[in-house]
Amino acid sequence: MAYIDVDKQVPGIRSLVLFRPETGKPLYELAQVLLRGTSRLSPAERELIAAYVSHRNECGFCRDSHAAAARCLYGDERSVVDEWIFRQDVTHLPVKMQTLLQLAGKVQAGGNTVTPEDIARVKALGVHDEEIHDTVLIAATFSLFNRYVDGLNSLTPADPAAYAAMGERLSRHGYVPPAVMPG
Amino acid sequence: MAYIDVDKQVPGIRSLVLFRPETGKPLYELAQVLLRGTSRLSPAERELIAAYVSHRNECGFCRDSHAAAARCLYGDERSVVDEWIFRQDVTHLPVKMQTLLQLAGKVQAGGNTVTPEDIARVKALGVHDEEIHDTVLIAATFSLFNRYVDGLNSLTPADPAAYAAMGERLSRHGYVPPAVMPG
Repeated sequence: MAYIDVDKQVPGIRSLVLFRPETGKPLYELAQVLLRGTSRLSPAERELIAAYVSHRNECGFCRDSHAAAARCLYGDERSVVDEWIFRQDVTHLPVKMQTLLQLAGKVQAGGNTVTPEDIARVKALGVHDEEIHDTVLIAATFSLFNRYVDGLNSLTPADPAAYAAMGERLSRHGYVPPAVMPG
Repeated sequence: MAYIDVDKQVPGIRSLVLFRPETGKPLYELAQVLLRGTSRLSPAERELIAAYVSHRNECGFCRDSHAAAARCLYGDERSVVDEWIFRQDVTHLPVKMQTLLQLAGKVQAGGNTVTPEDIARVKALGVHDEEIHDTVLIAATFSLFNRYVDGLNSLTPADPAAYAAMGERLSRHGYVPPAVMPG
């Protein structure tokens, strides 16, 4: 049960945003622009980074909802999501994405763990500054969301079907605050 | 030097926001509503939580700028900032703030480190759910900002006078994106 008096029927971050819509508004705007706005990374790639960071932070709610969104967005290649997140099997991921996911893992561990050598390795693959920026900010942003969701012990559904529905909604509609689209 | 091609004269997060204003906008809006909007915690108390989390994440830029803002906002009681952050001396802090800072430290370490016992201890002091929420979200948000600033190795001024000026600006004007108010 959540540590504060939120709606007990609403899972994860949505319950927290309904509790405090003032801060929920910029949080949803950040998620929308960062994961769906113009970027050199596809929405599928960005959702994969989000799910991977959430996995490393042991945040089941964010991991399962963003992994579900990534599966929808990868479509025919959806198996790469589980290969990477749950089995660390990189066989089917392009080298660029492997390297960006490693960078995201460093940021998750702490900003100061990223070294000039890490960045040189990324840049040697021809990765653009904007892709480096977006990867670092996605990893940093999920370091926020994961702590917000788990630090307040918000509802984490056990049923996999709940996440499949969330992933479907996130892949179709993006990040719409719950005041506009409930549940 | 920053890992990406940002303006080399602009320190910290401001250089990153100028590089990517689309994501900078909701980040500044979040900081403004969370640290200056309506809350049961004073702006001084919220800046102290921000500085403490940044200290634990070893983010010199965020620690020194938010500690400077907290000193301005605490005014006559400004010494509590340094006593807490640099000496962990809680003598002059009210018990409620001591407990909320301990909660923020847990969130910094990871959302799942917060236990029902931690929350029971906070609630036994009569702390309101909204104060618990805001403390957790400030700690989570600085887990983002610290990783963003250090993960991209943005400019961290060495001169203490630079932070005194930032603290003065933040305490007077709050969080205004650099496109509107440069420097």
